[in-house]
Amino acid sequence: MIQIAVLGYGTVGSGVVEVINTNHSSINKKAGEEINIKYVLDLRDFPGDPIQEKIVHDFDVILNDPEIKIVVEVMGGVEPAYTFTKKALLAGKSVCTSNKELVARHGAELLEIARERNINYLFEASCGGGIPIIRPLNSSLTADEIDEITGILNGTTNYILTEMAEKGSDFADVLKEAQNLGYAERNPEADVEGYDACRKIAILSSLAFGRQVDYEDIYTEGISKITATDIKYAKAMGQMIKLLAVSRKVDGSFYAMVSPVLVGPSDPLYSVNGVFNAIFVHGNVLGDAMFYGSGAGKLPTASAVVADVVDEARHLNRSIMAFWSSKKLELTDISNSSRKFFVRVKGTPETELAKVQEVFGNVQPVVVADVDGEFGFVTEVMTEAEYKAKAESFGEVLGMIRVRRVED
Amino acid sequence: MIQIAVLGYGTVGSGVVEVINTNHSSINKKAGEEINIKYVLDLRDFPGDPIQEKIVHDFDVILNDPEIKIVVEVMGGVEPAYTFTKKALLAGKSVCTSNKELVARHGAELLEIARERNINYLFEASCGGGIPIIRPLNSSLTADEIDEITGILNGTTNYILTEMAEKGSDFADVLKEAQNLGYAERNPEADVEGYDACRKIAILSSLAFGRQVDYEDIYTEGISKITATDIKYAKAMGQMIKLLAVSRKVDGSFYAMVSPVLVGPSDPLYSVNGVFNAIFVHGNVLGDAMFYGSGAGKLPTASAVVADVVDEARHLNRSIMAFWSSKKLELTDISNSSRKFFVRVKGTPETELAKVQEVFGNVQPVVVADVDGEFGFVTEVMTEAEYKAKAESFGEVLGMIRVRRVED
Repeated sequence: MIQIAVLGYGTVGSGVVEVINTNHSSINKKAGEEINIKYVLDLRDFPGDPIQEKIVHDFDVILNDPEIKIVVEVMGGVEPAYTFTKKALLAGKSVCTSNKELVARHGAELLEIARERNINYLFEASCGGGIPIIRPLNSSLTADEIDEITGILNGTTNYILTEMAEKGSDFADVLKEAQNLGYAERNPEADVEGYDACRKIAILSSLAFGRQVDYEDIYTEGISKITATDIKYAKAMGQMIKLLAVSRKVDGSFYAMVSPVLVGPSDPLYSVNGVFNAIFVHGNVLGDAMFYGSGAGKLPTASAVVADVVDEARHLNRSIMAFWSSKKLELTDISNSSRKFFVRVKGTPETELAKVQEVFGNVQPVVVADVDGEFGFVTEVMTEAEYKAKAESFGEVLGMIRVRRVED
Repeated sequence: MIQIAVLGYGTVGSGVVEVINTNHSSINKKAGEEINIKYVLDLRDFPGDPIQEKIVHDFDVILNDPEIKIVVEVMGGVEPAYTFTKKALLAGKSVCTSNKELVARHGAELLEIARERNINYLFEASCGGGIPIIRPLNSSLTADEIDEITGILNGTTNYILTEMAEKGSDFADVLKEAQNLGYAERNPEADVEGYDACRKIAILSSLAFGRQVDYEDIYTEGISKITATDIKYAKAMGQMIKLLAVSRKVDGSFYAMVSPVLVGPSDPLYSVNGVFNAIFVHGNVLGDAMFYGSGAGKLPTASAVVADVVDEARHLNRSIMAFWSSKKLELTDISNSSRKFFVRVKGTPETELAKVQEVFGNVQPVVVADVDGEFGFVTEVMTEAEYKAKAESFGEVLGMIRVRRVED
């Protein structure tokens, strides 16, 4: 029997208990031994809940119990999760987590401690919720050199953008509705401004490229400025607006960014709707691949956490995760990265197109039936720096959204 | 240094050599040791090719060389691949393969031999080409009980159906074009009649459900009877026709089938086009997930084979694949499985709808502008047996295609 402890009996923690109870016999079979939850750490008590008999309020009870081989950290936030995780690893206990803040900030260090002790620090649930992506990156895509990861990594923003596209509503209205449905937090900033997606792409990039990508270095732009008018243009062009977290290797340099992007129907990310997430990966021999599923939610996230528990149970004295050096990967500024840009300007093509073409070259106007006094156009491929210079030289630009594929 | 041997220098075999050469340093880093190809077994010689110095014609050279720790079997077909694989495993050499015929037929036995010897028999490339699906099923989705796997598992048929949908062409014309482009074999039967997809779903089902699913037991229907008229109806209904390989657990029983199916736009499989493959998985706690990528092709397939080589190099004396018992899983007859059916009949709604509704209930006619003398309709949910009885009682049915989702 393998004794485990769960830190935090919130949404994910109670999901972990539920998953282990629900699929007890198949999980034990796959782990090779019975998995038993001995302790649940929480500040609260849960009288009447069967979990109450396992509740402890003091982490040291868990730390000092030599029977505990695996610690499931699902508290969220950097502290005290970081201190508890480090102590557990130093005491020779494997740890798994859904905590993206902690992994993005201290993943390399915690992995190194685990490796030195022949134990494991796993974090499948930290990116993409239930979608298997960390383990495939670590143990399936090993024949490839990964040159691109592009993810729809935040369910809240994807839900909002999908609703805006389907109903033509404005951002603020859909956000309010999403908050009422529980799909968005009361304080939605971390989601809608792209910070959550930023941490996740930092983790995925660090793993794929083998070196520490600091999330503070990643250019991040959220969806709060996307309007119903932008959505109308996207529709007129047959495209969808998605919040994409991108990390690419171009000519030996790496860049990463989070921003709204126009995606066309030939792209597998185009039809990833609602609260679903997906991670597109390009390998130099594999070509395109994509992993799709529930990016959040109690049970899908718990499914990924418990899969890590099973993997740690199978590898109690063997380190299986690797290739994330604490040596920092220097990202290049995005200003040298190239793409097309969709731009909105005031006026009508009749009066303004000549001026637009003088600055942006031979672009074609995009006009939307019920949007007056403005029009849009898609530029040729250019760098961010070139776009910025042209936009400044042009004068007032009503809005700009990047375009994902050169061919779109 | 880990010495390996490659059996067969055809498309996949030469791809394996190319991938190992191309990504040599990153592969060695991930394997933890240098991977070196010592032998390539082929009946032919390749004068002038750098591979020539590694070519051997006699398998016993490989079998009797104790330096060889990993054998890559990419010959295809059951014999002599089966004999070579069994001998290699019995001699304590791990084997990996892209050979779906062999894995579908003898996978359970070969896995058992590998497990007894603490070595590995891996076959990531046997299903879905480069898409990581075997390893995720084996080591990522371990917290779940899988109750559905539905795959677009054959690139040739998906290419043909996509072209038919885009160009409105007939099956025979697109097949001819696909053959000229090298996307279809001169003898296309294994692909277009669904036999290839059938073997792959047998492998995936055996792994997901833990017991041997015999491919001979799987109801299999190909795409050769799909016409340009069927495609017109699908378009009129906003759907795509896909060749789906399905395996489901319903009320404790399992059934599996391969057939053309109508898929609606809310389904993640809807936009899997061209030669791409995808595998949809439903777990009881994870919910929906999908794995997408290149289902065939020299380098994507070789990418999956080489990832197996890396995994075997990491686990030279440790069995990592499991949960496929040779005990047979009895599939239930599909006649009790339920769905909606799209049906085409002669006549016009004006003259025939009353007769149709008498047999099939209150269905609504689907009429396509330039298709005369017939119309279609979608039934309510019913079992295959009920549908069959109704169709027989009705009389002449021009065509029937199953519908994937109850809601579509």
